[in-house]
Order: sequence, then structure tokens, then C-alpha cells
Amino acid sequence: MQTKQININPIGIIHTPFNDIKGMPIQPLAAKGVKGYIELFPEYTEGLTDLAEFSYITLLYHLHKINGYNLMVKPFMDNKEHGIFATKSPKRPNAIGLSTVKLLGIENNVIHIEMVDMLNGTPLIDIKPFFSKFDNRTNTKSGWLDNQGIITIKELRSDERFKL
Amino acid sequence: MQTKQININPIGIIHTPFNDIKGMPIQPLAAKGVKGYIELFPEYTEGLTDLAEFSYITLLYHLHKINGYNLMVKPFMDNKEHGIFATKSPKRPNAIGLSTVKLLGIENNVIHIEMVDMLNGTPLIDIKPFFSKFDNRTNTKSGWLDNQGIITIKELRSDERFKL
Repeated sequence: MQTKQININPIGIIHTPFNDIKGMPIQPLAAKGVKGYIELFPEYTEGLTDLAEFSYITLLYHLHKINGYNLMVKPFMDNKEHGIFATKSPKRPNAIGLSTVKLLGIENNVIHIEMVDMLNGTPLIDIKPFFSKFDNRTNTKSGWLDNQGIITIKELRSDERFKL
Repeated sequence: MQTKQININPIGIIHTPFNDIKGMPIQPLAAKGVKGYIELFPEYTEGLTDLAEFSYITLLYHLHKINGYNLMVKPFMDNKEHGIFATKSPKRPNAIGLSTVKLLGIENNVIHIEMVDMLNGTPLIDIKPFFSKFDNRTNTKSGWLDNQGIITIKELRSDERFKL
């Protein structure tokens, strides 16, 4: 079955301290204290109205340095292969990343954030407010991730397996 | 500043009971007990390996019936206007929806799900595993949403304000 291609135009750029995937935190929780900022293209600034009152925002962005994809991958947190959709590995059929980051403040079209786990220069696709009452899930099973024993999340950093 | 357009190819179709936006649940939590299924295009089936062990999955999908966008919107849950990025309203600059749904089971390329809050025939863009330890956020402020008083989430249904 074929469906139409979807065209996405970035709405801004995410600036972070990471110019290289090596050593980059692999999840927002591993990036506590790591700050960055979003430069929203000015034509979208009005859309930020009332956003400053949220403590977390969910970003969708383009994994712009990734080429191609694999259906089976060894994610950063395991040495066994898993299906790509059972992981958050970047080499996905559609290279879209998802991170819920801490919102520090907004000045005009600049959004200061913390817990950044993406490359410097990442094209931003969307911002959604995080509402814990709707967005958290409890009593969950998390497959292979539940079997990782003690994960020291603060130390989770990427290595070269998805080298750009 | 201009950036390149991103081209996205859907990886499947989401089948739900909702052929019309009117009366559709507006959040997954409002769709408890509402079942649907994903028909993943067969070439991606291997990517589902090990996904069945997760209880929730996060879907990215194209809000394919939405045309254009507004920077200020009255969301379903309020009668005041807010910036589009402070809401989950569908008329966004990039019409991508995000829902974390309950995973019921997988048979080959068919994924049975519950808590569906999207239109029948919605093009699927990505599936990511939900890992509560990484993906939940606690002690959050949620701006205008915190001021909605008692929200009877089970009764949240859309009306005609984003009529297709």
C-alpha cells in the first residue's frame, strides 16, 4: 500500500553543546544540567504565547545527520539486537527524534532549555506542552529495558555505533 | 533562516472507529477501552521484534485531514486562546500528532492498540517504545491546563472547532 509523502518544514534550530554524537547524552534524563536553547524562526513567535508557564516541553526534531535505517539495531543500552521500533535508536525509517526537556525561560523567539540530548544545529519540527496528568503512564512493562538491571542513567552517553 | 524541507514516508496506517473528528476522544486517556489497530507496511515488520513486551507505545502520525495552521487557538479544553505550541491542537505548523497508546498484541505486521484518539486512516510515521522510567515527568507545572479545575477526562470529546 502506498501513501503520500509528507513534507515537513523546520520551525527553528536547536542549539546544544554537542557537535559530535560521541559522548552525547542518549536520553533527556541523562542530560540533567545540560543547557541549550531553541531559536524559533521569528514568524512563529506568537505561537509561544502562554508556553512559559509549563515546566516541560516535548520537542520533535529531525535527526538530520542520520542516513538510512536498520530494522534490527543494538541500542546504546544493550548489546543484543532489537527491532528498531522497540528502541529509540536514531537509525529509524523516519528520522524523527522526540525529547521532553525542561523549559527554563522564553525571551521573544528564544527558548532556553535543559536536558538537551540532541546535536547542535538540529532542525526543530514541533513543540508540544507536557502535561503529566495526560502524558505520564504508570504500571508499565518496558520489555528488554526492564532487564537492564541497575541503569546509571546519568552516565548514559552514546558511543560510535551510530557514527555520523 | 531557511532550512531544508524534510520528507517523510508513512510506514503504515492506523485504523480506528473514528471517521469524523466530531466526538473523537481528544487525548489517549479519554479513549480508555477504545480499540484500533496499526497496519504496518510489511517491509517494516522485522522492526517490531521485541516490541510486544512493552505495555505502551508512542505513535507519531500525520494529522492528514488538517489544512493550514493558526498561531493562536482555542483548544478543546478551554475557551480562551493560547499559543499553538502551548496546546496540542491539531492546526500546527507541522501537522504531526503524538499519542502514547496501550499495546494489546502484535500479529505479524498488525499491532492491536487501545486508547486510540486519532482518525481512521491516519498515516503512521514512527513507533517508539514507552519507558516510564525515562519518559514520565513529575513535579510539573502545566500552565493554563493546571487551571482547568476538575477535568472529566473520560468525557473529553472534540467538537467542530477544527472541522475538517
